[in-house]
Amino acid sequence: MESTYIFGHKSPDTDAINSAIIMAEFEQLNGNTSAKAYRLGEVGPETQYALDYFKVEAPELLSDDLTGKDVILVDHNEFQQSADSIEGANIRHVVDHHRIANFHTAGPLCYRAEPLGCTATILYKMFNEKGFDIKPEIAGLMLSAIISDSLLFKSPTCTEQDKDAAKALEKIAGVDAQEYGLEMLKAGASTLNKTAVELINADAKSFNMGDYTVRIGQVNTVDLNEILGRQAELEQAITETLNNAEYDIFVLVATDILNSDSAILVLGEDKDKIAQAFGVELDNNTAFLPGVVSRKKQIVPPITETLS
Amino acid sequence: MESTYIFGHKSPDTDAINSAIIMAEFEQLNGNTSAKAYRLGEVGPETQYALDYFKVEAPELLSDDLTGKDVILVDHNEFQQSADSIEGANIRHVVDHHRIANFHTAGPLCYRAEPLGCTATILYKMFNEKGFDIKPEIAGLMLSAIISDSLLFKSPTCTEQDKDAAKALEKIAGVDAQEYGLEMLKAGASTLNKTAVELINADAKSFNMGDYTVRIGQVNTVDLNEILGRQAELEQAITETLNNAEYDIFVLVATDILNSDSAILVLGEDKDKIAQAFGVELDNNTAFLPGVVSRKKQIVPPITETLS
Repeated sequence: MESTYIFGHKSPDTDAINSAIIMAEFEQLNGNTSAKAYRLGEVGPETQYALDYFKVEAPELLSDDLTGKDVILVDHNEFQQSADSIEGANIRHVVDHHRIANFHTAGPLCYRAEPLGCTATILYKMFNEKGFDIKPEIAGLMLSAIISDSLLFKSPTCTEQDKDAAKALEKIAGVDAQEYGLEMLKAGASTLNKTAVELINADAKSFNMGDYTVRIGQVNTVDLNEILGRQAELEQAITETLNNAEYDIFVLVATDILNSDSAILVLGEDKDKIAQAFGVELDNNTAFLPGVVSRKKQIVPPITETLS
Repeated sequence: MESTYIFGHKSPDTDAINSAIIMAEFEQLNGNTSAKAYRLGEVGPETQYALDYFKVEAPELLSDDLTGKDVILVDHNEFQQSADSIEGANIRHVVDHHRIANFHTAGPLCYRAEPLGCTATILYKMFNEKGFDIKPEIAGLMLSAIISDSLLFKSPTCTEQDKDAAKALEKIAGVDAQEYGLEMLKAGASTLNKTAVELINADAKSFNMGDYTVRIGQVNTVDLNEILGRQAELEQAITETLNNAEYDIFVLVATDILNSDSAILVLGEDKDKIAQAFGVELDNNTAFLPGVVSRKKQIVPPITETLS
């Protein structure tokens, strides 16, 4: 039987890796014995902490050409975030919580999108609707993805459905969500072993906003000074990126996961407009943004509005 | 409270009209009291038969600018098949059974697609999942849409889920699906009152296939001679269309809903290739295609392959 390839987006976060594993389990329970999870990039330390804790192996790195192959996408749909050969694949199913853009298929398919905080929450609902048992380790991966996407339920993207799912899942997984979640986030938030280039690229996404192309990176930390104390080398790495690539502005967001605040470091053309978007002024290229943790809901919209 | 606009595609068929009414009922039951069904075109005689039978009023013709409005799309997603002002709307939800193409949103949304024969079958599942009662007239509209899209369960697009839904729905609606369905299809299949121009345009769609732009119209009938007996005036109307528009080939498919066969009338550049696609030859521009009823599954794929 031909394999069904299941994977999340490039530069995978915990939801992208875990949802691929969870969806493969769902397909297996549904009788699709050829379903297999893959990943499109390296497993980060936060995700590795979750996989180790629940004793689940990381998915294989995808290297096959997907032309003519059956695939299932989780936690993304936009082709530029997907496998390089996605255009020629037969997309059978998508489970996602993002906007739909740069996506099309040749034929009918299953598509399940809901505006929730995490893809794993949708998968949790799918298991329940089918009456499928959720094994403790699968519950642990679901819970880890929800904690990761919601920064322990503090992000404004987190919905009541995400919180209710997490409550049920911590029982099945046998962990305390607050205690386990903080350890998991801390594992991903250590920036000491990372180079400046790694820090600015780790979770960076590009956006077209008005006449500007803006690159926005986000780094979680338990201590903003771990990031701001390295401002000189970070600025050097950002300047090189701005010189070599097609970006006009680079915004590095350092998010304090303990206090739910962020600091931004901004370089590039008209950089003061970025600070204006938040009603603050840049001081030595940086600004403090109290209560800001979500790129999707709290960073991208005000910058888009100011630059457009 | 701001209204939520719910509608199916332009040139609406029974699934497009009925699914809008059914989805509005679903939203009302779900607490969205501002939900209202609309239509993007005239109600055809088949759909009118169903609405009259179950004593349901046709939705209002949409005339509002949708910019900034909340909308729910049923039975379509491609923007060229949707309202003219769809680009500026807030698309909150889509329920559909077609491929996804030429569709995008600014933010996250609910999207429910399944590769079934009919949108109303997906809506039937949604009512059941929520435990919502299905009123007899809503069941009648669901059943009518399934019968319409499947040509009384004979089309290869019809799945077991469509058949199972229809079985349950005929009980709730209090009708015999075969008997009621045949009368409904006949009501839509009368071609005697239609002009040649109406017949060739009624359900025509355009396709880019290889270097050709092919226009394929489909007309249901209970007697192929009702169509073929008017070949001269149909050819005149098609020739005018080919002269005035950007199409290279026009294929008119007349489908006998009683015997589940079709005849095609073909005009335009390289018209013989169309017959070749079905392994037959044109005789006086026409050919008989036994067992062919579905444009999507049995007409478009072989022509695409031959012309590409």
